[in-house]
Amino acid sequence: MTDRVTQARTFLKGSAALAIGLLAAPLYAQEKPADHGDTPAAAYQPSMTTLGELQVEIPGRRADDPIMSAEEFQQATKIYFERCAGCHGVLRKGATGKPLTPDITRELGYDHLHSFITYGSPAGMPNWGTSGDLTEEQVDMMARYVLLDPPTPPEFGMPEMLATWKVMVAPEDRPTEKMNDIEIDNLMSVTLRDSGEIALIDGDTHEILQIIKTGYAVHISRISASGRYLFVIGRDAKVVMIDLWMETPTPVAEIKMGTEARSIETSKFEGYEDKYAIAGAYWPPQFVIMDGATLEPLKIVSTRGNLYDEQVYHPEPRVASILGSHFKPEFIVNVKETGKILMVDYTDLVNLKTTEIAAERFLHDGGLDSTHRYFMVAANARNKIAVVDTKEGKLTALVDTEGQTPHPGRGANFTHPDYGPVWATSHLGDETVAMIGTDPEGHPDQAWKLVQSFDALGGGSLFIKTHPNSNHLYVDATLNPESDVSSSVAVFTISDMKAGEAPEYVTLPIVEWAGIADGQPRVVQPEFNKQGDEVWFSVWNAKDKESAIVVVDDKTLELKHVIKDPRLITPTGKFNVFNTGKDVY
Amino acid sequence: MTDRVTQARTFLKGSAALAIGLLAAPLYAQEKPADHGDTPAAAYQPSMTTLGELQVEIPGRRADDPIMSAEEFQQATKIYFERCAGCHGVLRKGATGKPLTPDITRELGYDHLHSFITYGSPAGMPNWGTSGDLTEEQVDMMARYVLLDPPTPPEFGMPEMLATWKVMVAPEDRPTEKMNDIEIDNLMSVTLRDSGEIALIDGDTHEILQIIKTGYAVHISRISASGRYLFVIGRDAKVVMIDLWMETPTPVAEIKMGTEARSIETSKFEGYEDKYAIAGAYWPPQFVIMDGATLEPLKIVSTRGNLYDEQVYHPEPRVASILGSHFKPEFIVNVKETGKILMVDYTDLVNLKTTEIAAERFLHDGGLDSTHRYFMVAANARNKIAVVDTKEGKLTALVDTEGQTPHPGRGANFTHPDYGPVWATSHLGDETVAMIGTDPEGHPDQAWKLVQSFDALGGGSLFIKTHPNSNHLYVDATLNPESDVSSSVAVFTISDMKAGEAPEYVTLPIVEWAGIADGQPRVVQPEFNKQGDEVWFSVWNAKDKESAIVVVDDKTLELKHVIKDPRLITPTGKFNVFNTGKDVY
Repeated sequence: MTDRVTQARTFLKGSAALAIGLLAAPLYAQEKPADHGDTPAAAYQPSMTTLGELQVEIPGRRADDPIMSAEEFQQATKIYFERCAGCHGVLRKGATGKPLTPDITRELGYDHLHSFITYGSPAGMPNWGTSGDLTEEQVDMMARYVLLDPPTPPEFGMPEMLATWKVMVAPEDRPTEKMNDIEIDNLMSVTLRDSGEIALIDGDTHEILQIIKTGYAVHISRISASGRYLFVIGRDAKVVMIDLWMETPTPVAEIKMGTEARSIETSKFEGYEDKYAIAGAYWPPQFVIMDGATLEPLKIVSTRGNLYDEQVYHPEPRVASILGSHFKPEFIVNVKETGKILMVDYTDLVNLKTTEIAAERFLHDGGLDSTHRYFMVAANARNKIAVVDTKEGKLTALVDTEGQTPHPGRGANFTHPDYGPVWATSHLGDETVAMIGTDPEGHPDQAWKLVQSFDALGGGSLFIKTHPNSNHLYVDATLNPESDVSSSVAVFTISDMKAGEAPEYVTLPIVEWAGIADGQPRVVQPEFNKQGDEVWFSVWNAKDKESAIVVVDDKTLELKHVIKDPRLITPTGKFNVFNTGKDVY
Repeated sequence: MTDRVTQARTFLKGSAALAIGLLAAPLYAQEKPADHGDTPAAAYQPSMTTLGELQVEIPGRRADDPIMSAEEFQQATKIYFERCAGCHGVLRKGATGKPLTPDITRELGYDHLHSFITYGSPAGMPNWGTSGDLTEEQVDMMARYVLLDPPTPPEFGMPEMLATWKVMVAPEDRPTEKMNDIEIDNLMSVTLRDSGEIALIDGDTHEILQIIKTGYAVHISRISASGRYLFVIGRDAKVVMIDLWMETPTPVAEIKMGTEARSIETSKFEGYEDKYAIAGAYWPPQFVIMDGATLEPLKIVSTRGNLYDEQVYHPEPRVASILGSHFKPEFIVNVKETGKILMVDYTDLVNLKTTEIAAERFLHDGGLDSTHRYFMVAANARNKIAVVDTKEGKLTALVDTEGQTPHPGRGANFTHPDYGPVWATSHLGDETVAMIGTDPEGHPDQAWKLVQSFDALGGGSLFIKTHPNSNHLYVDATLNPESDVSSSVAVFTISDMKAGEAPEYVTLPIVEWAGIADGQPRVVQPEFNKQGDEVWFSVWNAKDKESAIVVVDDKTLELKHVIKDPRLITPTGKFNVFNTGKDVY
């Protein structure tokens, strides 16, 4: 424990003010700010720090601010951005995590914050201190940091994007036909999270064809309508576009479109195949429509605006998932904090038509129903699925999943023997799977209702998956605290399901099959090959430990193959080119 | 001159640093900040000040900040908001006026700022010091104030609006038919700027029927499609809705929809008559769609976003004018700083469709062409008129007016003997009138082109006007520095106009006709009665001096009547119910 912390605790223990928890911050303020000298500077010099390559202005300080050196502030800003911003937001307005603005943190007090950061909470806050992810000094620093105003990262507009935009191979220098023997439709693009790469793996031979350098922690891969171009986006908002027709699939263009991002998609409507790409950022809260051949940024749209329900302004409504409509020349852009689904018409970027659908707050990920007409998206912290009719551009329904924090990925479409066509999601916060009817014509009684909720392996599920050619439904439990749960996957047999009966499942010991004894790898994201007869699982271990991809025969549920390779570092998401591009799930 | 100013000037005179103009601010910083004590406060206490009824947080201070007491900061914030924000923006990002963020003001230095505020500039900055509008102490205070970060005023969302919303007479308690003998269609709603009122004047008898208390400095009056409801909005964003069917026209509802505002409009499309009202704010940058019978706020939309051209984020894109389309169920919302024209479809507020037209920056005011299909709006600081096809929802053209700062009001539509249908605007910055062809069918060579530019009385014009039944075009010169110019109006005879020839005009000595000797009143805004045979002018004097409205016979150009009344304090805009409601101009 640092002297400073000891001092704070001692002070608080002896103080009657402990009960109101307000005194930790002023204690520090009795020292002199380390980053402001006595003598005034000769010119205007805001206190600056850096965040990666970005300059960040330290907001003005108050007499009662806790003391942080410029160096500490910079370190804390970096840690906050990497570890905390995902849940609490860059401006600390809260989303999955609680708001952490100084009005709130100063009420909580230093001691409370220190303890929270150290030990975490059952509600989902990680135990950064006891897990060893943060040192004692870092925990102290972060507890002081969140007592200060959050610095606002700089904007990232057209000049910044253009400065990062590179076309490595111009469209006219690219082949006019496929120059390789790769079965592109069955290629798997696999995120190698901690190495900032993707692996392209042949879906037929299971061979790693190539490792390609990308942005940090690629969130997803998407494929152009023609199947030729593969787009990946890192959490650092770097977009890399790969031409799969070249003799060796090669990045042909790249751009950084923000400071933090999650989503990329391409135009899929007839007549607009391969014409546009779109990426959505967490910071700044915006999306950009780009040329589909070069990634040239064409149109940047800010998502700042009002909460759909309370109609108060939110400074940081982040773009979660984006999907290309099959029914209209539109992108479906999900704005998390404000709970709005934007149908962005890309036929005319000068006169840009958008339908802003008031849905539900905390929109995250989702997918289309089997007809591709309806978009189902989780409003995760509200335990709801919003259903949008992409043909009519209207909200069709809000369905309560009766579970905690639905996390569907794209979800799973299948025909239930009794309920007919349904779409299902698993949950981060509990073990349930929610099935929602998606056939308003054939099964109007079930349509857009929770028809059944049943249990899978356990909480902490990230993905659920099936395929039109499969009779199985796979549910992972990646973030489950029990290693025997997080290392397995549950499989349900669709044809055995019955209305009103909890379906049974079998458990596949994926990590055991991978034969990895070192570390505590988690199983994440079932993904089908194109034919729908194999399902692949990532066995996701620590960066310095062996990981693998386990291929299971969907018919027999038996192990078919284990892909191991020293280059396969922290594999997470896998994206089959055909299934991803055609929205087959 | 205050000691502080003397001190600064003396210092600067003797300093080699004078040339770089950077040293004025640090001089003050050698003193101790007056509003931050030595001892830390016991709890989180941001420095707060008030702005009217609002709480404003003083942003953090830096060691080299100039010294202002909390009281001074509060006074300066108020002065800035009332006097400076209109041109420079609340966040000082600039619009009609230059940007005044500290990075710029500290480069300029205290001395330069002090002199600029005192003496003004030919480019349009008023001489606040020498005019006596600000005292020497206030000039000093403002020069120091703009060296500091601008405080961000609070948001004004749904909870704030609801707190100000009042329905004085519920719809069910209002008459079902007109209960008075007023010829409503020929009523004039006259802004009494400095008394925070409007006057309702009978267009036939010239009698003042009523004075109604409204928000501060009513910017415009608008009328519902049926002609029953009159809506006014003050610069303080207070909307007052008056029922003209009641025995005595009476306010039936009111709301405040922001901190500063300019625009109000009502839904005009068939089937939506009187259904919605919409108001646009300068701060926060937003608009709100309200129930047309009660002003209940239904949908608030933020206009924060990216500049249409450079595509960088702007935190304060203010809503300038709004117009109800006759061709579609849409509002046309002009966003000044970002240069975007929003076509907002009001048929479905849950699934809100908007077409965002990238037009030109600094959109201000405008009107429809004679067919009501095309909307012509000034991008004033860019000397352009943007033309929007309201039927197709597209930008049709950008026309350079070849004048300085077009300021059309709604503009003037007439049929030029040679050029056919044209729309004309005068200019704030020079004496020219620009005519733009508006008949793509009959006169395709002239359509959306500047067909002619000719001179009127002088610069400083605010409004130009004609009427379908008139052969005359009236152009004021309200803000012209010469009193003989600003007290008169120029009249052109439309049938005498010839292609390629500068038309001649006659000058009507409106102030002289008003018989007002005291003060230096200006003539502002020609407005026709319903029949189009009378044109009314405001003779706008100081608040404590006599003003008048002068009524001129449009056929003979002779004085017909002078309306004088002690209650007629600072009359400016006049809005004929029929012409305003039906977009006749």
